[in-house]
Amino acid sequence: MKVHGKPTRTIWVAGDAVEIIDQTALPHAFVVKALRTVDDVARAIATMQVRGAPLIGAAAAYGIWLAMRGDASDAGLEAAGAALRATRPTAVNLRWAVERMTAALAPLPPVGRPAAALARAQAIADEDVAINRAIGAHGLDLVRARARKKPAGAPVNVLTHCNAGWLATVDWGTALAGVYAAHDAGLPVHVWVDETRPRNQGAALTAWELGQHGVPHTVVVDNAGGHLMQRGEVDLDVVNKIGTYLKALAAHDCGVPFYVAAPSPSIDWTIDAADGARAIPIEERAGREVAALSGRTESGAFATIALVPEGTAVANPAFDVTPARLVTGLVTERGIAPASRAGLASLFPERA
Amino acid sequence: MKVHGKPTRTIWVAGDAVEIIDQTALPHAFVVKALRTVDDVARAIATMQVRGAPLIGAAAAYGIWLAMRGDASDAGLEAAGAALRATRPTAVNLRWAVERMTAALAPLPPVGRPAAALARAQAIADEDVAINRAIGAHGLDLVRARARKKPAGAPVNVLTHCNAGWLATVDWGTALAGVYAAHDAGLPVHVWVDETRPRNQGAALTAWELGQHGVPHTVVVDNAGGHLMQRGEVDLDVVNKIGTYLKALAAHDCGVPFYVAAPSPSIDWTIDAADGARAIPIEERAGREVAALSGRTESGAFATIALVPEGTAVANPAFDVTPARLVTGLVTERGIAPASRAGLASLFPERA
Repeated sequence: MKVHGKPTRTIWVAGDAVEIIDQTALPHAFVVKALRTVDDVARAIATMQVRGAPLIGAAAAYGIWLAMRGDASDAGLEAAGAALRATRPTAVNLRWAVERMTAALAPLPPVGRPAAALARAQAIADEDVAINRAIGAHGLDLVRARARKKPAGAPVNVLTHCNAGWLATVDWGTALAGVYAAHDAGLPVHVWVDETRPRNQGAALTAWELGQHGVPHTVVVDNAGGHLMQRGEVDLDVVNKIGTYLKALAAHDCGVPFYVAAPSPSIDWTIDAADGARAIPIEERAGREVAALSGRTESGAFATIALVPEGTAVANPAFDVTPARLVTGLVTERGIAPASRAGLASLFPERA
Repeated sequence: MKVHGKPTRTIWVAGDAVEIIDQTALPHAFVVKALRTVDDVARAIATMQVRGAPLIGAAAAYGIWLAMRGDASDAGLEAAGAALRATRPTAVNLRWAVERMTAALAPLPPVGRPAAALARAQAIADEDVAINRAIGAHGLDLVRARARKKPAGAPVNVLTHCNAGWLATVDWGTALAGVYAAHDAGLPVHVWVDETRPRNQGAALTAWELGQHGVPHTVVVDNAGGHLMQRGEVDLDVVNKIGTYLKALAAHDCGVPFYVAAPSPSIDWTIDAADGARAIPIEERAGREVAALSGRTESGAFATIALVPEGTAVANPAFDVTPARLVTGLVTERGIAPASRAGLASLFPERA
């Protein structure tokens, strides 16, 4: 998608480094950062300079490449995978990318591993772009179908939570891929952007990327979504992250279609959906994310301000689980399926 | 309730002034402010130095007293009421307090109005305390009933949204009155405090007042409530403000009892519940509340930071409407009633 009018990815190779957009500086500054070692990559993932499950997967793959250029031995491959896996507990794509890289490189002699690692990492990144473009095409169908039911020229209103846009992926995004496809196809679309406390990825990242690409949007606090749906001001809802369950409940209660974009590398086939809410480990992040907030002051300086009385206990679960009964459909790269194991199996028979 | 260990109200008379706790300085500083004219009171309400429907009502009543000391003519009474009514569009108590004061004072000769206004304003404030103490006694019954179903000594977990504590009233609070009553009665109780964006009244005010009174509590972002309920970590839910509808949906979905504290002066008997969501005018507050946030930096200075890209559109509805079907019961000063006109009429036959 576009930054300052120019098509841009979130991660790319520049000489002997991997370059990323430092997402912790957005929306106030557009900073490109060079990563030269696997430790640089692990740190970028842990500090959320790169975030979003698909982008984390691609970053991990490039991290293995950087590691192989330093130490291409079996021990080096093992250590790189371990360092990357330790960064974030929940991301399925991270585990998946490390496993794919390891499986491809382990049979090769060490001397051949650096070049093979680069080619394989590039393929993982390109594959993510292809998957998201396909998700976007299916999402475009949903937007177009909704637009036909509205007066000519009236925008289709999409509510989105957190950042499931191109910044969360290598390009296009997952939930927002269909929005970009619709906008690029000339369909009028408007996005309600949930602020998404505590890290404010909606207010900071989604608002920034939509603005850069020229897609009309309005930021609201997480609390406002139910109200907007009650008033008929939301046509479609596509989401993830803590708070998703609340929006799914409101969409169901107000008859608003609720779609989840699910690229196949993000699907965890090992989990039994029957006890989802209790089986999935939920990342508990630092309480500081809730207790304080950082941003730019009017003078241009960065400042961190306290939001709660000193010493207050805070809890900070990073995700919640949305029951399948509340989901209208899963938008995958192979089409739209019911939110069930059987629905997914109909599109991905080789995985089920 | 207690501040620095000493029982305190949110508003009181000191000599020829009305004193308030400046709630915009909390939780970082405890500032008492003297109001000497009706314009001071109107400004304090408009800037939310005093907020919360019951406290706004009491402040308006004291405002009429201050006005009468300056100009006790019919024109003065009329102008004072108009200035106060113009401060906040939604608050039922504000309108109610101005009407009660006007009805009591208009028949009197101007010379008798100042003293009568003070007596009447004190009565309105004392009545609020009495109502909330009664709500607290009924709320205590709910907490006690829940505690009996838990292992001995296990705290009853109450989730609360925004600030419906004593800072929103003259004393005791509405939704939190039962929590204070339970805590003072020695029942173990723990409060999950919703941050409550955009003005963060939960993080700033509810956390502060619970901390001052010594009630155990934990702050979470608004998005986390559904997750906590799914995990069985919420026993009771008592709320108001934008985002209430989302929590009511989650409580209903998870089988968590959902109570709304409703002092009778806050009940608008003129609204037909059948078309509630569309009939009630919803205050749209300044976008700046969403786009920026103020607080104290580590150096102790106050700072305001930007949260969204410059120029981003924001929307900021201040309330939402929670359908009665999602409410377990209304806790009033006369007891607990089903959330319906008939239910309320059974407790307040003279109003229905």
